[in-house]
Amino acid sequence: MDIAPLAHSLQTGDRRSLARAITLVESARADHRAQALELLQAVGNGKQALRIGLSGTPGVGKSTFIESFGLLLTGQGKRVAVLAVDPSSARSGGSILGDKTRMERLSRDPLAFIRPSPSQAQMGGVARRTREAVALCEAAGFDIILIETVGVGQSETVVAELCDLFILLLAPAGGDELQGVKRGIMEMADLILVNKADGDLKPAALRTCADYAGALRLLRKRPQDPPGYPKAMTVSALEQDGLETAWAEMQALADWRRAQGHWATRRGQQAQHWFTEELRRGLLAVLEVEPTRGIVAAEGQAVAEGRSTPEAAARQVLALLHRA
Amino acid sequence: MDIAPLAHSLQTGDRRSLARAITLVESARADHRAQALELLQAVGNGKQALRIGLSGTPGVGKSTFIESFGLLLTGQGKRVAVLAVDPSSARSGGSILGDKTRMERLSRDPLAFIRPSPSQAQMGGVARRTREAVALCEAAGFDIILIETVGVGQSETVVAELCDLFILLLAPAGGDELQGVKRGIMEMADLILVNKADGDLKPAALRTCADYAGALRLLRKRPQDPPGYPKAMTVSALEQDGLETAWAEMQALADWRRAQGHWATRRGQQAQHWFTEELRRGLLAVLEVEPTRGIVAAEGQAVAEGRSTPEAAARQVLALLHRA
Repeated sequence: MDIAPLAHSLQTGDRRSLARAITLVESARADHRAQALELLQAVGNGKQALRIGLSGTPGVGKSTFIESFGLLLTGQGKRVAVLAVDPSSARSGGSILGDKTRMERLSRDPLAFIRPSPSQAQMGGVARRTREAVALCEAAGFDIILIETVGVGQSETVVAELCDLFILLLAPAGGDELQGVKRGIMEMADLILVNKADGDLKPAALRTCADYAGALRLLRKRPQDPPGYPKAMTVSALEQDGLETAWAEMQALADWRRAQGHWATRRGQQAQHWFTEELRRGLLAVLEVEPTRGIVAAEGQAVAEGRSTPEAAARQVLALLHRA
Repeated sequence: MDIAPLAHSLQTGDRRSLARAITLVESARADHRAQALELLQAVGNGKQALRIGLSGTPGVGKSTFIESFGLLLTGQGKRVAVLAVDPSSARSGGSILGDKTRMERLSRDPLAFIRPSPSQAQMGGVARRTREAVALCEAAGFDIILIETVGVGQSETVVAELCDLFILLLAPAGGDELQGVKRGIMEMADLILVNKADGDLKPAALRTCADYAGALRLLRKRPQDPPGYPKAMTVSALEQDGLETAWAEMQALADWRRAQGHWATRRGQQAQHWFTEELRRGLLAVLEVEPTRGIVAAEGQAVAEGRSTPEAAARQVLALLHRA
């Protein structure tokens, strides 16, 4: 494959080229990998989109939200890309964005680009693939990148280290009903949106919103938050209600962070985070190769059963590796 | 040093031997390290204490709580050890347990053993030292080990991976006042105790308790929790009020987990966690040695400033290491 023309047509904003480029960075083949690095080098990192992470468990109406919110943005002339971080889809063989039929109108919008998550099992791989897809979308001139996650496993951490704003989407809960918010996700949220604030569910949505607003107040303030943030709000993706207000909040928060220098600082920290992650991953890869992998598993079992101590077992494996 | 007599006297419960043994595991000297491993091997892991992690920011009355709660336990004939995990003390040069004067009565109690945190900067070192001190306290026949942390940095994670129960101690907050609970700590708590529920502060303590009870209900249920847990309660360490109820809750929770098999499972998982941590730490240690350390810092800076990408920088460092 000739990389220079692909890089060029991608930078003009051509969606087919963007799709081909993402397929390239997703490939595990060594020759594809080399081409992918060449491509990323060629397109550079001169353009920045607003990266919005969106987390929500199944049933909160995430697809409807992305459809409505995405159309609101494209209606304002913004170019919107939607990516998914979903390591679990590799297990089920499916993709949380499905075949795009769940976002029919947005997927037909010429200003939008929707990319389902690939079938790829390894979390490190998912992180790198998403990070590179984000870079390609920015190079293609998209204004806003929505990065969707179902918030299982470590995917929310990946998204938090990739995005400028993190949105948690919730459904109304009745009374003492548990929302099942994954421990740790609430802490990352810049904005909590309680969806389905329409019809019969509206009172429950308002109550749920008040509960979360209360819970947010119990958390320590972060330096990257202006007074009053993180916020909880109600929206109805179905009735397109509250979405403009939510978008105004996101813009206000992003503008504040840009003005205060938090934006640039955070982007730099995120890049350093991924550098460190890649480095660690490269060094620890030796543990995934046989015979070490089997030895680590056996020693781990011995430790779990109390037949060995963590220190003694680790010493043994390290000694084996240093002899090799 | 002759290890066998030390191991023997420690196992009889002698507090001076325990103190000497902990000093040995805290030492960074290579010969001491070898003796420490020999000692840990000699005492084995046949006895188990109830390990209670206790987190709370300065000002919540942690010392008073430990004093009152510890005396309640020794009053029931239990042997109680108090350890501290405090990586920050290395910077300030002090110890959160101070010179024991803050727990005057407990420190004079023959059934109690109080060990201030050592001046040691490195988190991995703090974790290992605390883990080994816990093992020594168990070998010395203590029934309950209180592991105290101020909940800064990663110390709460260390404590969560060391203890059977995790208690978060809070102070009453007035109205909308922020408690400054470190993001992530609330999620680890098995029991939230709002202290200072006495005198003028009692109404505020009750309100704070209700707020946290509400926030706990919004979190996903963990398999290791029986119905109704995690709980929030008020106590007054000063007036020794509510401590017996809190202790009854801790025992009920511990008993349930033992009966359900969660206790043993968790201990096995914790041991495996520390094995993996030691292994990773051993492999990543190469990054802390010059000239690699300097190269990693320079590449990280280049990545943060956008002059290099995370992937390219990581590849470069890894290539250098593989050539070496």
